[in-house]
Amino acid sequence: MPDIFPTIKRPTLLLDEKTARRNLHSMALRARQAGARFRPHFKTHQSAAIGEWFRDLEINAITVSSVEMAQYFARAGWQDILIAFPFNWREIDEVNQLASQIHLGLLVESRDTARFLNWHLNYPVDVWIKIDVGSQRTGLAWDNPEAVQALAADLQRGRQLRLRGLLTHAGHSYRARGAEEVCGLHQQSMQRLTSLRDQLTQAGLPALEISIGDTPSCSLCDCTGADELRPGNFLFYDVQQSQIGSCQPADIAVALACPVVALHPERNEVVVFGGAIHLSKDAFDLDGRPAFGLVCLPQPNGWGAPLPGAFVRGLSQEHGVLHLPEEELARMRVGDLLCILPAHSCLTVTLMRSYLTLAGQVVPTMHTTE
Amino acid sequence: MPDIFPTIKRPTLLLDEKTARRNLHSMALRARQAGARFRPHFKTHQSAAIGEWFRDLEINAITVSSVEMAQYFARAGWQDILIAFPFNWREIDEVNQLASQIHLGLLVESRDTARFLNWHLNYPVDVWIKIDVGSQRTGLAWDNPEAVQALAADLQRGRQLRLRGLLTHAGHSYRARGAEEVCGLHQQSMQRLTSLRDQLTQAGLPALEISIGDTPSCSLCDCTGADELRPGNFLFYDVQQSQIGSCQPADIAVALACPVVALHPERNEVVVFGGAIHLSKDAFDLDGRPAFGLVCLPQPNGWGAPLPGAFVRGLSQEHGVLHLPEEELARMRVGDLLCILPAHSCLTVTLMRSYLTLAGQVVPTMHTTE
Repeated sequence: MPDIFPTIKRPTLLLDEKTARRNLHSMALRARQAGARFRPHFKTHQSAAIGEWFRDLEINAITVSSVEMAQYFARAGWQDILIAFPFNWREIDEVNQLASQIHLGLLVESRDTARFLNWHLNYPVDVWIKIDVGSQRTGLAWDNPEAVQALAADLQRGRQLRLRGLLTHAGHSYRARGAEEVCGLHQQSMQRLTSLRDQLTQAGLPALEISIGDTPSCSLCDCTGADELRPGNFLFYDVQQSQIGSCQPADIAVALACPVVALHPERNEVVVFGGAIHLSKDAFDLDGRPAFGLVCLPQPNGWGAPLPGAFVRGLSQEHGVLHLPEEELARMRVGDLLCILPAHSCLTVTLMRSYLTLAGQVVPTMHTTE
Repeated sequence: MPDIFPTIKRPTLLLDEKTARRNLHSMALRARQAGARFRPHFKTHQSAAIGEWFRDLEINAITVSSVEMAQYFARAGWQDILIAFPFNWREIDEVNQLASQIHLGLLVESRDTARFLNWHLNYPVDVWIKIDVGSQRTGLAWDNPEAVQALAADLQRGRQLRLRGLLTHAGHSYRARGAEEVCGLHQQSMQRLTSLRDQLTQAGLPALEISIGDTPSCSLCDCTGADELRPGNFLFYDVQQSQIGSCQPADIAVALACPVVALHPERNEVVVFGGAIHLSKDAFDLDGRPAFGLVCLPQPNGWGAPLPGAFVRGLSQEHGVLHLPEEELARMRVGDLLCILPAHSCLTVTLMRSYLTLAGQVVPTMHTTE
């Protein structure tokens, strides 16, 4: 394997393909064991080239988070795409265009949107009802079966609409810590969804599928009972997921290589070229204070384990301020590289727009300019 | 003026050119009144087209935050560019290339870097010593004149190095509130810098210039005594600056237009298409909790004043969750647009990569793909 580090001049997103593929295999196996369709979320990697790793495992159905991302992956040959974001009326033309080409799935959470789709869709689409099982972001409340039933009845009657099921993203699992707490929430979510589905079936609706998606539950819990799993972050994981317990730090498959530009031993800090425009300002809690990444040393085959006691204390536009233990700092020189494990890999990927594999290959994303 | 709102399908960064040009005129005037050279920071707008507004005012010297940005603006014809970021050794080839073409300024804060430049530079550059007047990010401490003197002596002896002066970014002014507090910090910074300069002059060094740059001080305080002003954010301002008191909300010249995709009157919230990948996760404090933007209604000529009591409560990758007062929420429909004033405009611009003016013109940045 070539030594990529001498070629790095600027903040560069390193991709450990071996670890990412291991994460992918592991999640595909978990989905199979749960008897669920695996419809991975591609918003994490956003790359047609990385999508091919999924095809290697005969995965054919994917999830995306925007119409633009659906267009990108449709161009890359994906034929079964769910846009897991509440349908945006202003993109009806683009949605019709996509629906004329591929098997498209949409998310609906209001009767107004059901009416709009019924009026404006020219091609058949799958529709899923977004259910809020407790995350308080979007979706109809799980404990309001009347509202769900009314929407389901509208969708069933709709022209071009194939009502598929109930879909949720248990985003509140991101605030849990450890398998016990995550899986407690997961069981609660599944009970809420299955009870809701049973009420709808009793009310005369056809059998609906259940689709779930959060990486913590899919990584840690028995997902039997779900018809579809849509995790995305599991491919790379990140420090937030490691804190939740979804992964070990060694499972994190991306790291931002950053040149050291200043040493400040008087306050145990180094400053790197690598800031909020590279990592994003998403944070994790470190002993009650926000931190923006963990710090590793480059190694011939990638990067080492996180340095104990080292973390990204602050980010401005291009600057990262890193706290390092005294003995590590004593070994650092201006011009060295440090590798930062991001707080939230999906946002870092969006900002960085391409990867450099440990084999020295540049992997583009949908945002790559050149 | 055409109504741009019907054309908007996705999160779109609106640019109020009139307000931005007014902010620019006002800051240029303040610099002239202070008797200082105006070297505006272009990291805020990152656009060659917007750079032309500065040339209209006969501004010839600019600041950027990376070598890549310097290359972009050099291609756009700028001949006097200061890279206000600690020199990154790994970009020496690119710096030499730039120095062969334009009048280039660099920032140095260590004797190691001075030695490196002395060894590797092939063309003359200006160098500025970065001084930390209290922000604790980068720079030599203002109260360590011996260290500054040793570095200055190295730089003075350096081949190709023209020592220009002392440069600071009083980033801690961002934590101040109101003109009195900001200008108290500004006076303290100026006292620290001038006292340091005087000590260096007494030690036999030639007269050094003083360059300062934070938008709060430049917007609110008498900057007499500084030789150069390098603010950037003032062009667009944002909610953080409005909270500091650097501007009024009506001076904010960019807003993210976002389609409403879900209404949640049961918790006084609407969900928009517009999330962390559009606004960034930078926040401001709202009554002790983080908020990510203020909310305005679209108007024929742009957007209105921030709706009292409305704010962006949370952001995920593509979702923005907005708190709206009951009476505003009652008027909203799915498919409507809301305009969000960003917490931090520089990061929003980096993420959005282009602007739409109120006249309906697309303005590219250095990050624009197509």
